[in-house]
Amino acid sequence: MSTPPSRWSEMAGKPVQDIDTPSLVIDLDAMKRNLGRMAEFAKKHNIRWRPHAKLHKSVALAKMQVKAGAVGVCVQKTAEAEIMVAGGVHNVYISNQVIAPAKLARVARLAQKLAVQGGGQLAIAVDSSEGVIRLAQAMTQARINAHAGSSVGTVIDVFVEVDVGQGRCGVEPGSAAVTLALEIRKHPALRFAGLQAYHGKAQHLRTAQERRVAIASAVAAVVLTRELLQAQGIEVGLVTGAGTGSLVLEAASGVYGELQAGAFMFMDADDARNERDPAQPQFEHALFVKTQVMSSHSDHAVCDAGHKSHAIDSGLPLVHALDPGSELEYFNGGDEHGILRPAAGCTRLPGLGQMLWLIPGHCDPTVNLHDVMIGVSGGLRQGTVERIIRVDARGAMS
Amino acid sequence: MSTPPSRWSEMAGKPVQDIDTPSLVIDLDAMKRNLGRMAEFAKKHNIRWRPHAKLHKSVALAKMQVKAGAVGVCVQKTAEAEIMVAGGVHNVYISNQVIAPAKLARVARLAQKLAVQGGGQLAIAVDSSEGVIRLAQAMTQARINAHAGSSVGTVIDVFVEVDVGQGRCGVEPGSAAVTLALEIRKHPALRFAGLQAYHGKAQHLRTAQERRVAIASAVAAVVLTRELLQAQGIEVGLVTGAGTGSLVLEAASGVYGELQAGAFMFMDADDARNERDPAQPQFEHALFVKTQVMSSHSDHAVCDAGHKSHAIDSGLPLVHALDPGSELEYFNGGDEHGILRPAAGCTRLPGLGQMLWLIPGHCDPTVNLHDVMIGVSGGLRQGTVERIIRVDARGAMS
Repeated sequence: MSTPPSRWSEMAGKPVQDIDTPSLVIDLDAMKRNLGRMAEFAKKHNIRWRPHAKLHKSVALAKMQVKAGAVGVCVQKTAEAEIMVAGGVHNVYISNQVIAPAKLARVARLAQKLAVQGGGQLAIAVDSSEGVIRLAQAMTQARINAHAGSSVGTVIDVFVEVDVGQGRCGVEPGSAAVTLALEIRKHPALRFAGLQAYHGKAQHLRTAQERRVAIASAVAAVVLTRELLQAQGIEVGLVTGAGTGSLVLEAASGVYGELQAGAFMFMDADDARNERDPAQPQFEHALFVKTQVMSSHSDHAVCDAGHKSHAIDSGLPLVHALDPGSELEYFNGGDEHGILRPAAGCTRLPGLGQMLWLIPGHCDPTVNLHDVMIGVSGGLRQGTVERIIRVDARGAMS
Repeated sequence: MSTPPSRWSEMAGKPVQDIDTPSLVIDLDAMKRNLGRMAEFAKKHNIRWRPHAKLHKSVALAKMQVKAGAVGVCVQKTAEAEIMVAGGVHNVYISNQVIAPAKLARVARLAQKLAVQGGGQLAIAVDSSEGVIRLAQAMTQARINAHAGSSVGTVIDVFVEVDVGQGRCGVEPGSAAVTLALEIRKHPALRFAGLQAYHGKAQHLRTAQERRVAIASAVAAVVLTRELLQAQGIEVGLVTGAGTGSLVLEAASGVYGELQAGAFMFMDADDARNERDPAQPQFEHALFVKTQVMSSHSDHAVCDAGHKSHAIDSGLPLVHALDPGSELEYFNGGDEHGILRPAAGCTRLPGLGQMLWLIPGHCDPTVNLHDVMIGVSGGLRQGTVERIIRVDARGAMS
């Protein structure tokens, strides 16, 4: 860890200029506006939202989301779920497959802990019969361990993941989902909760029209699958999915009952490259890497943030120009450096020691590189450090 | 942190099959062979080596390198230097510019600490007069703080960085380096130690011929600069540089006195894409992400390692096929997933729960994603966990 915790705690109240570089900084005002817009959007569309905590990995931000109206959070990893529950988040959905028996034992223990402690609820996704059977075995074993042989106990919510266009996990739409739902219903510790129908690829389609086509196809796949389930007398309690790039479409579908979008809190540079659907709330960039110029040249400057400070899987960061004439383009300078060249409108290259703000291409894996996020109120120019937000689940990949 | 430290300590002696996924695993036998090859190479060429600890960020591995003959380690960040020194590494070179006064104060304190504690030595690179002046101010202030006004004290070694083709930091070859050396010599707490001449781009040139041309050009730039310095009566104590991709050329140059190569310890998938120079030692892949199949389909499988488990800045990981017929290609599945499709020679897709080994495209930023590396001896098939190696400087970016 680069900075001892004691050093972080001393930062509260300090001016934004004093934040060391490179650091991950949240513009708290912008983030809270994003949160308010999402809450309002969900309310208006009368839809649940369970935002993805894989973005921020922070108990504090999860709780802030729940306070704003979210029903709980989604996570991708068992370890993330454990950390959220330990921090006091009571409704957690592992929107992903878990196959390893040792991990499923942890999932089952967590489901029990949630049920006992706070009247909370754990949910998980499946996409194979083997996955259902292993989950049921783990839940049964946890019941035995907890109740010394009693067969009553905690129930875990299970969503069948349907591949609605992502081409990654999930069963094909249609009868395969019915088979899995029937398998789930055989096991008393499992409750068939509905369908996981997330179209990840749609988030990165650039035009609103392309996204409409993709989500229309996802909706059709869900409707087909739901009809087959209903024909077997199986009700689909909830259809859950959607990311920030497409959420207006899932919300308007009449089929999805829950939005998982998470990125709206911070807004990636990559999200901002999409043509905005007019119905989408005006989310703002709220997460920045603060960096400074460490080497200055006639045709370029070099800053102290490379791809150990921000993830570049969805493209390089944008440079957030605070003043006219300071427009720069970021080029890859390796693990610890960024190369800055003049962009359109630029009248001068920044000098040695000048502070700059980068908008990460992809916030989720960027946050995962940092131990803390420094929350600033009052803006990036004149603001002060309000609080230090721990990335509780940084590196929680198991 | 995904796994509490107590859980790691219980892993020693366990079979490789029991390692949870995704995890970062070192094949210790292969790593030690790589280390032995590097030590032998350096000895044969009568050249110092100060491997870059930005790769492994581990005090234990730094000490292992010193034991094998390295003079110390290079780092890129002040925080990395602090962690190495705190761990007992006595010769540390920050092969990078440091500009922020608060960081330079830390650098100066560290130089003093090293000099006092272990007769150690700190070194740093500069590429601007402003950088030299700020460094000198910090060193002077640290002397005043330590000696209550005495002007005697610790000296820091300062290398002038010359841009020998990287196009990032460094002054132009020639007179600009002389200007900086003269500036350094004005300050009693600074000692001009030589030239930093690292050609990063050359590491990624695919053919041996392209690398020969690039390093020949770097050598010419160094020779020119050295002649100008000597004409001013300034001796160049040491020329330092070289990465794993080009080290045979710097070693044979007669100009470079020190190799900074670090990647040889683990060998990136990207390094292995280079045409090997016949003179280069046969370094092996020694770092792997252990992953398992979590979702199985007719035309692909999905594993539980995405780009939160390994860095993809230098390309996607290779799948290390332990058995004939199991050849797979890895496709980007996002933050937490990898998509696997059959590669040439593949006769079957892996089933649910099957363990796989990924060779990261770029090891440096991959290591930075993990809290520990699990050291295995006896190979990836039948081996056992020998030790857990902490990534002490994970996230140390300040």
